Amino acid sequence: MERIDSVNNPKIKAWSKLNRKKERDRTGLFCVEGEHLVQEALRAGIVERILSVDDTFSSDEVPFTEVSAAVLAKLSANVSAPSVMAVCRMEPLHPVEKNRLLILDGVQDPGNLGTLIRTAMSFQYDAVYCSPETCDFYNEKVIRSTQGALFHIPLIRTDLSKLCRDLQKEGVTVIATTLQEAVSLRKLIHPERHALILGNEGSGVSPQLQEAADQRVRIEMKGFESLNVAVAGGIMMYELTVSSN
Amino acid sequence: MERIDSVNNPKIKAWSKLNRKKERDRTGLFCVEGEHLVQEALRAGIVERILSVDDTFSSDEVPFTEVSAAVLAKLSANVSAPSVMAVCRMEPLHPVEKNRLLILDGVQDPGNLGTLIRTAMSFQYDAVYCSPETCDFYNEKVIRSTQGALFHIPLIRTDLSKLCRDLQKEGVTVIATTLQEAVSLRKLIHPERHALILGNEGSGVSPQLQEAADQRVRIEMKGFESLNVAVAGGIMMYELTVSSN
Repeated sequence: MERIDSVNNPKIKAWSKLNRKKERDRTGLFCVEGEHLVQEALRAGIVERILSVDDTFSSDEVPFTEVSAAVLAKLSANVSAPSVMAVCRMEPLHPVEKNRLLILDGVQDPGNLGTLIRTAMSFQYDAVYCSPETCDFYNEKVIRSTQGALFHIPLIRTDLSKLCRDLQKEGVTVIATTLQEAVSLRKLIHPERHALILGNEGSGVSPQLQEAADQRVRIEMKGFESLNVAVAGGIMMYELTVSSN
Repeated sequence: MERIDSVNNPKIKAWSKLNRKKERDRTGLFCVEGEHLVQEALRAGIVERILSVDDTFSSDEVPFTEVSAAVLAKLSANVSAPSVMAVCRMEPLHPVEKNRLLILDGVQDPGNLGTLIRTAMSFQYDAVYCSPETCDFYNEKVIRSTQGALFHIPLIRTDLSKLCRDLQKEGVTVIATTLQEAVSLRKLIHPERHALILGNEGSGVSPQLQEAADQRVRIEMKGFESLNVAVAGGIMMYELTVSSN
């Protein structure tokens, strides 16, 4: 069994660079932290190597390196380092079906992006599409907020205008969320196949996509009229899922 | 007009300590950052002093100090400092009505707590009650996640077992969320007056409160079965609000 104690070990230096998007994109690798996420990554079959302070996760199936706490502190993106991490391969999944899709138009906050991916998975959405400027999927905070869901649901970064046109041709109803003039969510007639668009935290869904959408919908509120995008997305996915059962 | 350039100025040193809970509790003061939150605090009438790099926020009504960017960087809890901050007084609000209440049993993450307060405000809940171990209301990340809602909705830290007993005596139906055996949310008969309990991110609602509740409810999901507590809370408040209209 390999053991590395020094933070200056060349392998550790290389893996620590995976905290940067550029290096993740170059190598096709990323790190996950903590027992739960390592287990979800193992379940998804994408683990390249496990690194841990003890041999709990040592097995014949996946390469394992025992490391010092200092090494994990160096690799971790968090202030308090975990006791186990895994170096994983990016293995994009492809949508098998396109019955219920989530489309994210410029979501910036890693916590919001991760939470939306987690919620989409929980309501059995078929895929999550994101505009090119949406924050990186493999950011540590995104991964943590997904609770591992991002290993199991297809995530695609693409041009959303073209996507919406293509989906509409395939018979998928495109629904944009808005705070302006729109059908209230409870009154929305639920289409058999839909793609739900949520927008940027500050500016919402872009005017072009609102225009292109088949339906515009808003959540009924009084007073403060302010919901976090991950909460709004959760409410809409719930409504579109549970009511269509 | 007062102007302070030095980070070593005694007033600045004193205000910078407001990043610590202990100092906030001792003085009854806390800071808010950025234009939107300063405006919400002004609207609530709790601003003690505004600090800004320019005189945009200068007025006759609220004391104002022009400061250097270095001073704001010293006072800010964020990596990128805002251009305006306000020192505010804690002025607890008291619930006028108790028809729709949110109860948080040990929510730990400041972002989740803030988002739940924001959502409660948007769905016109009357108050948010928290167990003693719930994270501090005046943590910078909590305030930011509320988007200012915490200035406008009563927030009370209290013993939840006693609270639930008292509410039940007053005719309020106490509903606990759970992943175990429970009524599914869509099938819940909506009580006229309710208190919704959400639990800790890891362990959920404590067994004692689940036991004490009049109803136990869960959100219908298949598969991944994992929702962030702020998303779950949003879905439940939506369902309990919109359907009872």
